[in-house]
Amino acid sequence: MTMAVEKAGETPSAVIDRISLVLDSFDGPGRLTLAQIVRRTGLPRSSAHRMLERLVALRWLRREGRDYELGMRLVELGSLALHQDRIHRAAIPLLRDLHRATGLVVHLAVLDGSDVVYLEKIGDHMGGAIPTRVGGRQPAHCTAVGKAILADNHITEVDLTDRKTRFSIATTPQLVAELAKIRAHGVAFEREESLPGFGCVAAPIGPAGHAVAAVSVCGPMNRMAFDNRLVAPVRMTAMGIWRSAEDGADRVAPTLQSLRPLRVGPAPRPMGRDSASLQPA
Amino acid sequence: MTMAVEKAGETPSAVIDRISLVLDSFDGPGRLTLAQIVRRTGLPRSSAHRMLERLVALRWLRREGRDYELGMRLVELGSLALHQDRIHRAAIPLLRDLHRATGLVVHLAVLDGSDVVYLEKIGDHMGGAIPTRVGGRQPAHCTAVGKAILADNHITEVDLTDRKTRFSIATTPQLVAELAKIRAHGVAFEREESLPGFGCVAAPIGPAGHAVAAVSVCGPMNRMAFDNRLVAPVRMTAMGIWRSAEDGADRVAPTLQSLRPLRVGPAPRPMGRDSASLQPA
Repeated sequence: MTMAVEKAGETPSAVIDRISLVLDSFDGPGRLTLAQIVRRTGLPRSSAHRMLERLVALRWLRREGRDYELGMRLVELGSLALHQDRIHRAAIPLLRDLHRATGLVVHLAVLDGSDVVYLEKIGDHMGGAIPTRVGGRQPAHCTAVGKAILADNHITEVDLTDRKTRFSIATTPQLVAELAKIRAHGVAFEREESLPGFGCVAAPIGPAGHAVAAVSVCGPMNRMAFDNRLVAPVRMTAMGIWRSAEDGADRVAPTLQSLRPLRVGPAPRPMGRDSASLQPA
Repeated sequence: MTMAVEKAGETPSAVIDRISLVLDSFDGPGRLTLAQIVRRTGLPRSSAHRMLERLVALRWLRREGRDYELGMRLVELGSLALHQDRIHRAAIPLLRDLHRATGLVVHLAVLDGSDVVYLEKIGDHMGGAIPTRVGGRQPAHCTAVGKAILADNHITEVDLTDRKTRFSIATTPQLVAELAKIRAHGVAFEREESLPGFGCVAAPIGPAGHAVAAVSVCGPMNRMAFDNRLVAPVRMTAMGIWRSAEDGADRVAPTLQSLRPLRVGPAPRPMGRDSASLQPA
């Protein structure tokens, strides 16, 4: 993509878009040289260089020799975004219980366009076999969590072009039928639709008809039971998370001592509650 | 802090700083109204509003009614930053082994100014008792990981004002003596200096004299052994992580047998980012 950019008089929105463009260019192999960033973003070299150096100063990027990488400030902001999310905060203890009770890999995800974004993943060695990660994406229609959210919200207009396996949903009629079945059962099954050899059971989280997230258990097909042995715990977890998120609205994790708030740039330190938002790993 | 901002002709750097200021303002209670953001940043209301709406469109922020929150794009970027980090990538399997072998909470951290930032935390129920999280900070001199990195790099100029407990290091001479001891032992002990009732053992990761990170095990004081039972596994893990990060390899021999002289400087890029970089939670 190429963009013509003027140096003076540009609007803040244009600058924001350019920053976004620059950061997006790192969504690939990681380290990039100035030349590579210029090529990927279409920004003028000198303007890109000034922006990169400013982003390095703010720790949004890191420079090592001639290479730029995403920086620690993004890790901090991402972590903060995650831990300020009230669904995520409410879910953590229940997700861990679900993992302990089933021995399967547990995911929490939200819908974003035609994709799901994972907010949490809990699993021991088996987790390594499933190529998902917190902050990662999958096409919603290929996953149990995605189908659960789509079904509950009656969303059928999604991009079906990206299929993960030969079992992935491929057509809108197929999707419509599948979502109807999911609404009837209150739970979504996924059988090797995202990863050969693996299956999932998911339930939507949120007020009926307006699910805001979903929880699932995933494992090798031979360890999955597509019946009440998994359906009941998954649905109970989904209901428990929503109840806890609604109750807790603002104060969910009063358990632990305070973590020092993140140190930031020039803003005055807000006092506070955020110190209670913890990662119980 | 108050900032006077002009609408036209401002430099991209000034805009970047304002975005940073806006995002930093969320480093507190989380949800903020426009009025609160204006108060915290000192930006003019209309300019702040335009910026916020642009950030919402890019999913850096999320708006719910009148409240703004940090958005999913930050979770994605933060996750990407973490998983593109070669130390983090190399460390994951070894951190899990260390957790399994010791039963203690395992941390991976880097130094940032006078703080450490946690890149990973692995621990089961005990993890919940320790108020750290990925992307969170602690004053370096209060933690074993921080002291290990400071010692190896001979850094003694840090901000000692923030003490976490009455056992935290309080003066520069105290710090200097402690760091010398750590260099002599190759390992850092922390006894209730960050959290009452808990202790840690940490080792630096990186070429001698230029540690770039550190790994630690933490647990209740009565479960900690400040001797070779923990020192050996922690040091071996640190060495294994660095060797693996240098190789850029995905598979690691978790013993000292194949240790070869450390090479200083940037390693060649490991191939194959995302689908291969797993979060084994």
